Amino acid sequence: MKRIYLDHNATAPLRPEARDAMIAAMEVCGNPSSVHAEGRSAKAVIEKARAQIATAFGADGADIVFTSGSTEGAALALSGRGLHGAAVEHDAVRAWIVEDLTTDLGGSVLVPDPANATLQLANSETGIVQKLPEGLAVTDATQAFGKLPIAFNWLGAQMALVSAHKLGGPKGVGAVIMKRGTDLEAQIKGGGQEMGRRSGTENVIGIAGFAAAAEAASRDLAAGVWQRVAEIRNILEKALEAGSKSTIFVGKDRDRLPNTLCFATPGWKGETQVMQMDLAGFAISAGSACSSGKVRASAVLSATGYDEATAASAIRVSLGPRTTEEDVLRFAEAWLEKEKKHRARAA
Amino acid sequence: MKRIYLDHNATAPLRPEARDAMIAAMEVCGNPSSVHAEGRSAKAVIEKARAQIATAFGADGADIVFTSGSTEGAALALSGRGLHGAAVEHDAVRAWIVEDLTTDLGGSVLVPDPANATLQLANSETGIVQKLPEGLAVTDATQAFGKLPIAFNWLGAQMALVSAHKLGGPKGVGAVIMKRGTDLEAQIKGGGQEMGRRSGTENVIGIAGFAAAAEAASRDLAAGVWQRVAEIRNILEKALEAGSKSTIFVGKDRDRLPNTLCFATPGWKGETQVMQMDLAGFAISAGSACSSGKVRASAVLSATGYDEATAASAIRVSLGPRTTEEDVLRFAEAWLEKEKKHRARAA
Repeated sequence: MKRIYLDHNATAPLRPEARDAMIAAMEVCGNPSSVHAEGRSAKAVIEKARAQIATAFGADGADIVFTSGSTEGAALALSGRGLHGAAVEHDAVRAWIVEDLTTDLGGSVLVPDPANATLQLANSETGIVQKLPEGLAVTDATQAFGKLPIAFNWLGAQMALVSAHKLGGPKGVGAVIMKRGTDLEAQIKGGGQEMGRRSGTENVIGIAGFAAAAEAASRDLAAGVWQRVAEIRNILEKALEAGSKSTIFVGKDRDRLPNTLCFATPGWKGETQVMQMDLAGFAISAGSACSSGKVRASAVLSATGYDEATAASAIRVSLGPRTTEEDVLRFAEAWLEKEKKHRARAA
Repeated sequence: MKRIYLDHNATAPLRPEARDAMIAAMEVCGNPSSVHAEGRSAKAVIEKARAQIATAFGADGADIVFTSGSTEGAALALSGRGLHGAAVEHDAVRAWIVEDLTTDLGGSVLVPDPANATLQLANSETGIVQKLPEGLAVTDATQAFGKLPIAFNWLGAQMALVSAHKLGGPKGVGAVIMKRGTDLEAQIKGGGQEMGRRSGTENVIGIAGFAAAAEAASRDLAAGVWQRVAEIRNILEKALEAGSKSTIFVGKDRDRLPNTLCFATPGWKGETQVMQMDLAGFAISAGSACSSGKVRASAVLSATGYDEATAASAIRVSLGPRTTEEDVLRFAEAWLEKEKKHRARAA
């Protein structure tokens, strides 16, 4: 039986448009910093991509600095600045912040001083969407761009972190989008690429794939694909709710990403569920897909006010633009069967 | 007429093996940090690549940390350490060192305290190869790996920086190779990938391309391809020497990369030559291909003891494994014609 991939928040399959753009970019031989014709062709690939991404993310007039992904983007945007943030942020953000912002029981972060704070746009584990305060210094928009109809220019944030592989581009490429004129100290220094903000020969092939994916993601959004995804997610939620009385649906009454469903069944470890569902043919996750092998309760759920037992039993199902109703109903059936067995064992 | 690419030290065309490996890796959908089958498949691509690169670079038993290229590698290996180095290093290395090591007139760097020093293996502009002292902290091997028959395990250095695109892999991926057990403070923090040394979802497609290119480069080396390249380079050097009496060949009697020819014609600006040759159908360079548009005398040549006029008039021709004798003789003819015109104007 065909496996069903329901872990799009960890990474999304490469979009065909991104694949084609990358294969085309493989023919471009020059170094974008070289002044000869071959170099100018490579530079043109990057600058075309920059314009496509600006359009796709509603960031016309903003500066876009290409990075190797949001983890590097977080280091670039946050390191040495001592910005304030909450424990619901991704570890790549938490590495650089003063972690003293509090999160209410529904998952909303309180930001008293936006100009000195960072706040994610949407949480990767729960899908909970934050209302960004005007004048926010940095937002980690990695999970939100491509899934929500948002424009950087309307976010009210000075900088946003984005990553290609969350919206169907390749892994290992991303960008920091920033209002024009924003100061930013380079973390990776040398040849002076990206206007001195991020040195190093550019990932030309990856950047071309990123732009094509961003454009396709933007078309999907305009076509209402994610509304359909939200409907399918809601069908899944209802099916699980109907079958399991002890399961808690995180962020159910909150503004959530259309594709994300996070739920906890206290007493049944999230990691165990992930492994059981993997054997049954479904890819899902417990917590973020980082530092492979790490098994611990979700720091996000703990920060959102759930007790340890609930946090340790949470899993995340995240749908993609091509996920079907049949996919999620098959998942619900398989999961509920395991859940029944778990209850029988626990009883 | 077909253009002739003679700027392989800036970046090499993608090898067909790298292209195929990248296209194959595009089918792998998971996040390497995910524990499910899709994640494990992505992880397998990376670990296979790591093993291929270890073999290709003679680094069995060493640790290989993937980066976005040697510029990031330099930041990872060098920042905060205050290592000593010379002005002939690449700008990405110069950004982090105490620049107090001296270079003799032939281009050799004197390293009194190897354990606290960094030294390039080969210079990108002149091709001059350094003898690395035993116990060296870091070597920038970016230009040397893939062109010289060297093994990391025999270099005597604690760490080496390498980059995929210099040997026919994609731009935007590289590695720091280090003796097992070497301490290294992460510069990009978060999910804990690469054993905590470099966080961020890995560039799976790029890493697959890097490994395939390294393997192919290693096969080329074993097959003696670069000896043939050196012969062609020497044919070019002789042709230019015979035609232009005022031209200085840098590093002529030194140990040089087999593919590199750096020469200066005082009074005729390097940038002018690059543009004239570009119009004539040849891609070459003056200085490193970084921070596009920068026009200045080569810091490397100044550090190697050449005066300003000579340094400002230097160009680099760098051959690839597929460059032919006909290619370089066409270049020599075209360049000598321009040189004659330049002399006529200057007279």
